[in-house]
Amino acid sequence: MEELIKYGEKFFDELEIAIYRTRDASVNIELNEVSTSALRERVVTIIRGLKDKRLGVSIVDTDDKKALRDAIERAYKMSRLNKPDEKWVSLPLPGKYRAPRKMDKEIKEVSPDCFVELAKESIDQALQEEGVVVAGGGGGAEWRESLIMNSNGVNVFQEGGGAFFYIELVGMKGGKVTPGIFDFDARLSLNLDVESVVKSAVQKVKWAFNVERSKTEEAKVILQPWALSSLLNYAFFPAFSGEKLMKGTTPLMNKLEETISSDLLNVYDDPLHELSINPIIADDEGTPTRKNVLVEKGVFKGFIWDNYWANIKEVKSTGNGKRNFSTGGIGIALHNVVIENGEQEIEDIIGEIKHGYLVDSFQGAHSSNPDNGNFAVVANPAFLIEDGEIKGSTVFMMSGNIYELLPSIYAISKEQKVLPFGGSMVVPSVAFENVRIAGK
Amino acid sequence: MEELIKYGEKFFDELEIAIYRTRDASVNIELNEVSTSALRERVVTIIRGLKDKRLGVSIVDTDDKKALRDAIERAYKMSRLNKPDEKWVSLPLPGKYRAPRKMDKEIKEVSPDCFVELAKESIDQALQEEGVVVAGGGGGAEWRESLIMNSNGVNVFQEGGGAFFYIELVGMKGGKVTPGIFDFDARLSLNLDVESVVKSAVQKVKWAFNVERSKTEEAKVILQPWALSSLLNYAFFPAFSGEKLMKGTTPLMNKLEETISSDLLNVYDDPLHELSINPIIADDEGTPTRKNVLVEKGVFKGFIWDNYWANIKEVKSTGNGKRNFSTGGIGIALHNVVIENGEQEIEDIIGEIKHGYLVDSFQGAHSSNPDNGNFAVVANPAFLIEDGEIKGSTVFMMSGNIYELLPSIYAISKEQKVLPFGGSMVVPSVAFENVRIAGK
Repeated sequence: MEELIKYGEKFFDELEIAIYRTRDASVNIELNEVSTSALRERVVTIIRGLKDKRLGVSIVDTDDKKALRDAIERAYKMSRLNKPDEKWVSLPLPGKYRAPRKMDKEIKEVSPDCFVELAKESIDQALQEEGVVVAGGGGGAEWRESLIMNSNGVNVFQEGGGAFFYIELVGMKGGKVTPGIFDFDARLSLNLDVESVVKSAVQKVKWAFNVERSKTEEAKVILQPWALSSLLNYAFFPAFSGEKLMKGTTPLMNKLEETISSDLLNVYDDPLHELSINPIIADDEGTPTRKNVLVEKGVFKGFIWDNYWANIKEVKSTGNGKRNFSTGGIGIALHNVVIENGEQEIEDIIGEIKHGYLVDSFQGAHSSNPDNGNFAVVANPAFLIEDGEIKGSTVFMMSGNIYELLPSIYAISKEQKVLPFGGSMVVPSVAFENVRIAGK
Repeated sequence: MEELIKYGEKFFDELEIAIYRTRDASVNIELNEVSTSALRERVVTIIRGLKDKRLGVSIVDTDDKKALRDAIERAYKMSRLNKPDEKWVSLPLPGKYRAPRKMDKEIKEVSPDCFVELAKESIDQALQEEGVVVAGGGGGAEWRESLIMNSNGVNVFQEGGGAFFYIELVGMKGGKVTPGIFDFDARLSLNLDVESVVKSAVQKVKWAFNVERSKTEEAKVILQPWALSSLLNYAFFPAFSGEKLMKGTTPLMNKLEETISSDLLNVYDDPLHELSINPIIADDEGTPTRKNVLVEKGVFKGFIWDNYWANIKEVKSTGNGKRNFSTGGIGIALHNVVIENGEQEIEDIIGEIKHGYLVDSFQGAHSSNPDNGNFAVVANPAFLIEDGEIKGSTVFMMSGNIYELLPSIYAISKEQKVLPFGGSMVVPSVAFENVRIAGK
């Protein structure tokens, strides 16, 4: 493949060739049945080339050399028509990578059949509980290989994969219908703990059969990992992007080393964290990944960067370049954000609450505004806690600003959940006090 | 490929093999530049098999025979674990197809380069107008081949393709920023009329620079093709699905031969209509397509069916089976819905309005409820008409029920637009009187 870089240098001052190969073996679950078995295999190659600071990008669904030479020429023709990007500095230089994680090669070859049995067993397990319907779900394994090369000598191959399982239950009993209750597991091996996933979802359905009203009040609210991650992903994490700093659209501008949260909060991004299910050693431009601390004891510690924006700011890329597969371009994103766990078990945090709520999932988090931190979400399903026990399910609105919410953290759970969200996330349950909620 | 059906019959009572091959050559436009050239090629094969009325479905990204034999076996293993669907009757029998449209083979081979020039020229044309920014856009050609076979003898190959171009402009002048203004062209040949697309979009930006307030009132409202199609696609057309009839969730139940609209309205679905850009002779199950009349002179004429629901109802499939590419299953959908044009030119319809509005696009149409026809949309961009002339752009809310709106049609334009929406649509501008709107 190096010869393709040589070929491209006939046209471009600089170029990058990125080849991605994926294999997904999976099954779907629909209405108490395993509905589809899929084996999807794809190759995508993206060429980014620069001539006189003019950018040309092309995408092809192949790694055939003749087709890639054509793609290089197409990218070149395009670059000639575009205006120079005077801010352009250069593609990344080679860096030193950390040692890759040893990957489970079984995932590369696994048949979707393996997940048919698993899905069937999970459906049988769920249906043992009276009034439970398996509305949806799925399970499978993904294997990804990537080769990132550029004319500055970057040349990094990575491979790896993981398995996932999720289920959505609805309870129907005595004329009552619960909201959809979701649970899942994701790991780097095929040892999925499907039994625990179903058990946890069934427990939530049982809670949800008893519907409690929520009040408009200030109360203690525990956000479970799925709810917390969706809120932070839309309202908070985009603010750490160096691009937003350069464009003046992040509320974290001029806040370096300032306290933005309770001192219980520690957040960093590290794809090689032991629980990560996205253990990449290089980002999509071939820059080495590393541990980047975002928040330490409530203090804002720094932005994340890809190569383009880091060059403009004259800092180093933090290895957070991520490919956009529809345009071929690179944006800034987290790989495996870790919210450090706390000391208390979740049961104890719940047990100490006289009156409060536990939120399993938020609706509407995607319409949050990361440029100021405002959000307005519906907690559904949520659960009412009275005297340290869960009394039933409820729904409420929560609107506010993430920078007003984060200082009210008073406890973080010992347990963390791994989420296959934006690559990977490692997230505990987090408890907030004096949260204003609007009952529905 | 017939031998694969034979192979599958060792396992299944009935099976279907559907192979889809697509080639898309396209470019993107971002912020006044041609940003990406893409050449995407994909093959997807879907196996649906039944044994003792138990369904098994598998999907693979290949048409390799060995891989398809494996996929047949996977579908079989899955079917053994599922419960029988007692409602299942059979896969379709062979039918008589209409003569296919002659397709432009140039589209099959076209290079994305062809659209780079086109996109560049369109950007240059748009930027000639002061204050115009090209926010986005794209152009390209798609070529599709499909082979649908089943064990009842269905065996139909189809191929064809079309080209498209779209542009989104924003006007910025004197501190004013217009909403995004969208326009497009789509056809079965490469003869795209990009110049007219840009001209039309620029005209709308010029109108939009002058912002007019809308009042809360009852007024005449003309819905242009893009706005009308989005409203009908979400609030009205799903009601024609035979599945919804069988499930009792369509407001058209028991309305056959009843008047549901102004008698000016004539609607039918016909993929071989002369303006269609989705000229298929068979649906995704291999059933022949045909002209299905939905509304004639305001009277509701009938539902559309796929094979599964038609069998249960003991009627004939209307050839409206459409593949869901994530589950492999078949649902009911329109191929090329045609709203018949009227007598008047759009200019004359506008010219006769003393006070009213012209709506280019709706936001929020997707949250309409087709089960009762309720909608609540924001008309943006819309244009104020005074004394037969467009005075400026405006925004308003329109909420109501499609079955209350349709009887108030008083004019339909002669001009029709072809939209690449849900396959293809042929849509004129339609004028309504006494429409209640809420000014913003």
